[in-house]
Formats: sequence, C-alpha cells, structure tokens
Amino acid sequence: MKDPTIADIDARRQAVGQMVAPTAAYADSDMFKLQCSRASNKPAARRWDNHLTAESFARAPGILKVAARFLKRPGIISLAGGLPTPDYFGFRSISAQVPTSNHGIFFEGESTITMGIHDIATENAAFDLSVALNYGQAAGSAQMIRWITEHVELVHNPPYADWDTCLTTGSTDGLYKALRMLCDKNRGDSWMTEEYSYATALETAIPLGIRTVGIKMDSEGLVPEAMDKILTNWDASRMGARKPHVLYTVPTGQNPTGSTQSASRRRAIYDVCQKHDVYILEDDPYYFLQLHSRTSNSQPRKLSVGEFLASLPPSYLSIDTDGRVMRLDSFSKILAPGTRMGWVTASEQMIERFIRHSETASQGPGGFSQAMVYKLVDEKWGHTGFLNWLQRLQAGYTDRRDVMMSAFDKFLPKLIVSWHVPSAGMFCWLKIKYSCHPNSKIYSTLDIEEEIFAACLKRGVLLAKGSWFRAEPDLPLQGVFFRLTFAAASAESIEVAVRAFGTALRTIFGLV
Amino acid sequence: MKDPTIADIDARRQAVGQMVAPTAAYADSDMFKLQCSRASNKPAARRWDNHLTAESFARAPGILKVAARFLKRPGIISLAGGLPTPDYFGFRSISAQVPTSNHGIFFEGESTITMGIHDIATENAAFDLSVALNYGQAAGSAQMIRWITEHVELVHNPPYADWDTCLTTGSTDGLYKALRMLCDKNRGDSWMTEEYSYATALETAIPLGIRTVGIKMDSEGLVPEAMDKILTNWDASRMGARKPHVLYTVPTGQNPTGSTQSASRRRAIYDVCQKHDVYILEDDPYYFLQLHSRTSNSQPRKLSVGEFLASLPPSYLSIDTDGRVMRLDSFSKILAPGTRMGWVTASEQMIERFIRHSETASQGPGGFSQAMVYKLVDEKWGHTGFLNWLQRLQAGYTDRRDVMMSAFDKFLPKLIVSWHVPSAGMFCWLKIKYSCHPNSKIYSTLDIEEEIFAACLKRGVLLAKGSWFRAEPDLPLQGVFFRLTFAAASAESIEVAVRAFGTALRTIFGLV
Repeated sequence: MKDPTIADIDARRQAVGQMVAPTAAYADSDMFKLQCSRASNKPAARRWDNHLTAESFARAPGILKVAARFLKRPGIISLAGGLPTPDYFGFRSISAQVPTSNHGIFFEGESTITMGIHDIATENAAFDLSVALNYGQAAGSAQMIRWITEHVELVHNPPYADWDTCLTTGSTDGLYKALRMLCDKNRGDSWMTEEYSYATALETAIPLGIRTVGIKMDSEGLVPEAMDKILTNWDASRMGARKPHVLYTVPTGQNPTGSTQSASRRRAIYDVCQKHDVYILEDDPYYFLQLHSRTSNSQPRKLSVGEFLASLPPSYLSIDTDGRVMRLDSFSKILAPGTRMGWVTASEQMIERFIRHSETASQGPGGFSQAMVYKLVDEKWGHTGFLNWLQRLQAGYTDRRDVMMSAFDKFLPKLIVSWHVPSAGMFCWLKIKYSCHPNSKIYSTLDIEEEIFAACLKRGVLLAKGSWFRAEPDLPLQGVFFRLTFAAASAESIEVAVRAFGTALRTIFGLV
Repeated sequence: MKDPTIADIDARRQAVGQMVAPTAAYADSDMFKLQCSRASNKPAARRWDNHLTAESFARAPGILKVAARFLKRPGIISLAGGLPTPDYFGFRSISAQVPTSNHGIFFEGESTITMGIHDIATENAAFDLSVALNYGQAAGSAQMIRWITEHVELVHNPPYADWDTCLTTGSTDGLYKALRMLCDKNRGDSWMTEEYSYATALETAIPLGIRTVGIKMDSEGLVPEAMDKILTNWDASRMGARKPHVLYTVPTGQNPTGSTQSASRRRAIYDVCQKHDVYILEDDPYYFLQLHSRTSNSQPRKLSVGEFLASLPPSYLSIDTDGRVMRLDSFSKILAPGTRMGWVTASEQMIERFIRHSETASQGPGGFSQAMVYKLVDEKWGHTGFLNWLQRLQAGYTDRRDVMMSAFDKFLPKLIVSWHVPSAGMFCWLKIKYSCHPNSKIYSTLDIEEEIFAACLKRGVLLAKGSWFRAEPDLPLQGVFFRLTFAAASAESIEVAVRAFGTALRTIFGLV
C-alpha cells in the first residue's frame, strides 16, 4: 500500500463528514485511521503480558467512565455524572494570536484563533469550550486524537495494524507511566538507557527502585553490540537485578550528547531488542528539529511535504513490525513547553493500560491546551501548515546552532576540547581532554569537571556538567564533558558565553 | 492575632512591590504569607516520617532543577537548560472573555483578559507567555502560588506555622500522589474512606494494592465513633492489613451522599485521628458550593467578604494544629474542570515530598491554564471578586437544587424513597426502601438496584447506582441508593427525568 498523504487524510474527512464529539466523548485512533485495524492487512502487534507489572495488570476501567457509555443513547437525560454546567464556567470564549502560515518557510504576520463556549451548537463547530473545559476522557479529546492519529499515520505509518495513541500531559508523564507499566521493583526489574541520558528520565526510575544500566555510545549514539553483549552475558544474581527487558532511548538529537542514530543504527538496535525480547521506549522530542548544513547564507529552500517527510530519519515506530515500541512525542519543543501536552503511540494493549493509569492519576491535558492547539494545528494550519512550521523551526535552530559552532571555532582551544556538529536537537556535547590538565595525576575527573564548571560560573556562564547525566553515577566518571544548548540564549549571549568558556579552559589548562 | 483580611493582603503586596518571577522561578508559600513561618508564633507541624513510603523517602531533588538555582546570579548567561526560545512558540498572545464582577451577586456582562508573550519586558507585568508557556517549576508558577497562598491564608488560616502549598493538575493528581506518598503495599498499608465514597478515589487505591476500609456514615457523614471502634479493635493479622494510618474524607457535599459534616463532627473526627495517629486527606472540591435555604423567590442578599467567610464550614485545614491534614482544592467545580488545576495545602515536609514526585511524573499544570486563571482571579477579579463569584455560583446551584427538590416532592413516591436536602455540593442521595419490593424475599439488593437502574434507562434517564461507590464492594450491599446530580441538566430536563424515575419506581414497586 502506498504511503499515506495529506490528500488521503482530507479525503477521509470529507467522506465521514463533520465530527460529532460532545462532552467526554470516547475516542481512539481506530476511529480516525485511513485504514482501521480490522481492514488492515498489516500484522497484529505482539502481546506484552509478560512485560507488564502487577500494578498495571490490576488496573480496571473506572466505573463512572464505563457508565458514561450509556450517554450515547439519543435523547437520554443524565443525572448521573457530576459535571458542572458550562453556564458557570469562568470563561466564555478564548482566543490567541498565532503565526500565520504563508506557505513559505517563514511565518510572517499573525492571525487570530477563537473558540467560544457554544460553538458546536451555534456554529456547527467540531469543538468548543463547553466540551474542552468540562471533564473529558483521560485519553484526550476526540478532536485532538483525530489530529494526532492523522499525523502519526502520515509521518510514521506504523507497520502493524492495531496501533493506537493517546494524549499525555507531556513526555515526563508518558515516561513515568510507561515505567510504572513495565518495571516492578518487586520483580527486580532493570532498564537500559544510553550511558549519558536525560537526567529527569534517570531520576524517574530511582525512587521506583528500578536499576538503570547504561549502554556505551559513539558518535551515532547507543552502540547495539555493547547492548547485545550486556544482555547475552547478564547474570541476574551477580547484577542484583533481572535481565533488562526495557530500553529507553532518545534517538534524535539525544539529550545530553546531541547524537542522532543513523537509519542502520536504529535497525541494528531494534534487532538486538528482538533477539532479547526487549521493549523499546522511544523518547523523541527533537525528532522534528533536524539541523541542516548550509553552504551559503542564502535563505533555505522550502521543501514539499513529500521532501520534508523523506528528510526525517526513520523512527522506531516506523520500523516496528512487532508493536514493541512505545513512542513518546511532545509539543514542548515545537509549539511550547507550557502546552503540557504530548502523545504516546504503541499497540492497543499498551495504550489501553496507559489510559487506565491516566484515569486515576492525571486525567488528560488541560482544556485550554487542547482547545488552543486544536485550533492552531487542525483548523488554522492543518497538517501542511504544521509541517511548514516545523521547517521554519529547523531553519531557526540551524541558525542558532551555526552561531554556536562559529563561536566554538573562534574561541575554544582545540587542543583540549572536541565536539561533533549536532545534526538535530538543541544540544552540543563537548569533550574535555582532561589528561592535559596540569594536575591530571592528582585530580579526579570529577574534580576537573567541577573546576571548569566553577570557573565558567565565575565568568557569568552556566554550563551543564556531563556527570549530571550519568546513567550509573556509582561508576567512576570516565570522561569530562559539558552539554551546551544553543536553543535558549541570544546569538550575542552565545558568543559572549563561549568566549568566556574558552578563556576559562585556557586559564585552567595553562594555555595562556 | 486577628484573622487575615483582603486589606492585609493588599497592603503586603503594596509593601513588597512588583513581583519579579522570570522563567522557571522558584516559589513557595512562605514567600507570600502575611506572616512567614519563622516570624509566626504558631507551633510547627509534626513530622510524618513514620507515615511516608519508601518510594517517597527515596525522592531526591532533580539535578537540573538544582542547577537552575545558579540562574539567580545577576547577568548570568545560561547554556545549560534546554529551554526553547519564546521566539519559536506557536502563540504570541492569548485572551479570553470572562464574566465581569460588578460587585453584586450576579455577574452581568463580560470583559477581556489578555496576556502577551513579552508583557514582563514591555509592560512591567508580573506574568507573560514567555514565562507561562516555557518550562516551569513542578510546584507551579510563582504568580499562581502567590494567589493560592493568599487565598488559603484568608479562608483557612492554618493554625500551624510551616504550612505550604503547591499546584496540582487537579485533585485526581493530588490524591494519587498523596497515596503514593503515604501508602505502601509492601508494608501492608490500608486507608479509610466513607463507606460510600468517590469512585475514582477508590479505584486509585486498588492497583496500588492498598486495602480500603469503609467507615459508617449518618446524615452528617462519617461517624467518628465507628472509626474509633475499628481502629481500637484492629487486628492486623486477622484483617490482612496494617492498621489504617490514613483517612480520606470529603467533608462538604460528600460524593456520593451529599452529606456535609458539621463543625462538631469535624472536630470529633480530628480527635479520633489524633488518638490513633491517622493522617487526613481532606478532599473538598464542593467546599464553596454551600446551598442555602430560601424562604421566598427573592434575589439572594449579597454577603460582605466577612459574612461570606463566616458562612463557610471550618475546614480540617483550619483546625489542624498538628499539620496532619493534606487539603485538596480544585478549580474544577468553581471555574471549569478543563483548567486541570488545583492545589494542595499541607506542612512543608509533605509539600516538599509532593513536589519531588511531580517533578518526575507530571510537572505542573499547563501554561495556558496558569496564565488564564491568574489573569482572571488575580488581575481581573482579585480576591474580593473571586469570593463574589463563589456567591454567584452558590445562588445558581441553590436554584438548581431547589428545582430538583420540588420535582422530588412532586413526582417521587415517599412511601419507598427518602432523602435529605443537601446543604452543599452537587449531589442528592436517595434511599430506596427495598423491603417494599414485591419480590424482596427472593431478589438481592443488587438485583433491585439493577431493576430500577434499567427501568430508568429504558425511560431515557441515567442515574448513578449506589453500589458504584462502595468502599468495600466485596461486602454485601446493605441498601439500595441512587445518586442524582442537579449540576448538569437543565431545569426542564431535571423535571422530566425525576418524573420518569418516579414512574419507574411506582411501576416496579406496584404502586400504580
């Protein structure tokens, strides 16, 4: 079957007509796919019962949510659910000024999005505040699940039939619930991550009593052979933990190293996971922040939708024939962190367990977020405008990366500091040749790292220490690294900060 | 010391000047109290180390949040945190139409609230989208914590010094984290609730392996003597669970029974909790929905702020000399459920543990919510306008309650159905005299409940079954009850539905 296109999505919407999704309407991806699970000739996902925790198994559907099914009967009057009347909501309508897609790469000008309290009744709209600001399904609104489903099918087109999605309140929420679903300290569970990994992810596992195993990395990120070796030789009694059955990986613009796995690297890692029955948590917030190399200062050429999609690396989700991947996406890096909204994609079995957890832990994302993001990405921009917006971000972050790389070239002493130019994300990872330190015989790597950190701070620059991101902080620190981001500071500040960093290094290493 | 007033709060704000709280600024209640903990002559809260779970104990501050403290240095350039630049946020400004406080009881007309991306820099504002839509502290924005702190001090004025607050993404989130903090299945923990309780609360405990113990109720809710007896006679080996050390209670307009604990009842329950070292989770979403009795159809008189505050029942928080209460508040019933925002108040020790959990599970509420609610309750309405709004809600829900009570009087067969007129909240609890059922000798209570439920459904009316709310569903169902809400349906629909309910009862019980 040919790849899904935006034209296919538009045609499907035309065919089914206006969405009817009142307060707390149930929705899942199968309602919005181009090809629903039953009609698909793709294989079904494998079952993951042996991976689930006792807690996750014990989750039953909430009685009130089950009762809500009766609401589908036409004309029924409910005195059952304690939903406040929208007459007493503190908000009558909301609106926002948003960047306008002009079908070019840069978004010039602004336009307005608006949602009123009774737009469904008065304007035959698909969504309004009477729905968005009332109680809803923990999985998210039908309106957002439709858009997410279309987006996932367009970008990833998972190669098995029964994939599903639901919203999260961001990937912190997604990872936390995935861990509760898959790892149980009473079973002695452990999980694997890159040897340097996202600090919050590592900190999520610690109080849950889950042992973290760090896997060696090279310039393409996690090394599959290293993972295979660890799994093949695992001795549960010696390691004090069950053989890891979960891999957490940030495949694109990895945090903190900035590395991006090549297509063949992803394939090799997936193969090792198949071999050892490992479930994959693909945390990919930087997926769309591909940073291009530029030969001149000319404006970047706008890609067609097809070209743009082809320019993205294959996600694990897109090669996942087994349904062994839970992919975590987030609006944080591409619209705003404050949306507190993201989504997970995995097999129906796993999404169902995930939603059960959300029902008694978090509920879905906020109604303002769902309303605002829906209005923007569905009604105002559409899928085409959204992909154009991503191109605009890529151009912007590429500029910022290049400012930092120029500053590195200009101000850093290459004798003692080295880096790879990141091809995605927000981070660059700098390796310090600590053996060149005048006191390298008596100072530990941690000492040298702290000395550089403190010297930069004294010069008004805050860097992130490599040691903050160690998967296994009890092991000796193998190198001195710093993570620098080009996402936040202005071009001028980046220059000033990198210059101060270079001066600090020269001073400490006696290169002045 | 005299009770805090809105004038005191205004004076304090005047004295300290404009709030300065940039991106991800740290904040806690002590920064905004009229009297900070150290200056207070109130006693300190007790420590609850023996109540905390191993998981909660193991939570350490996140390394990246700790690093953010360095950002306080003036002029520092950070290349550390992966915060996207606000230049690339998908939203430039937001606004809303909101009901205008006219200082009367009814809110006539609308006005506009607006927040732009750089209002702090360009208009010397206290909050803007560059902050609200970026990453923030899991505890919530400084702007919202200030308002919440002032509100809590005004309404509850906790009688110990070191109370603190933080935001939640709603009380589902609050309760879930409180349970993880206090109850551990590996320790054989159990908790107590009213014998009929909020279904989602009960469902939160089940997969966590926490045994629920239901406590008898009367028309004033939970019976303290029944709780004392259970605790005094607890035999851990016979009960298969440790003696309960946590009480979950909904003191006002209880869900599902609609009962409200009197002031003396609250005091008696608190005493029993002191006697048995029980920690109290006070879930009080209906606190402000006091429903008044009215002698005529005249418009309700508007109360002064002092009169209004005096009309509220004493919360557990307001009598909590030990710091043994965690109070859960929510905007869901008083602004809109879709805000997905509430707050918890407890001793500093407990709030600190709570925030550590939020950092690796949920983060704080969405930025749109924090921005919108701040603009509304702080800048547009202020504390006075907010309390006026609550009076407006009380008048509205009182009208709705009275519509339902009139319909009960008109349509329900008093021979077999009885109720108390609820004095708060959204619910009425109807008791069916099932012994009058023609087949009461052969039908179980569950059978009769189902027969009535199904007959109503056939007539187009959805009710909530009493059995859905049983704290201990394995015990035999002691009575037949239905929960009806007057919050959601229109007056006409309430009449139609209650009439159908009455007809169904008459038919089933052979009263036609």
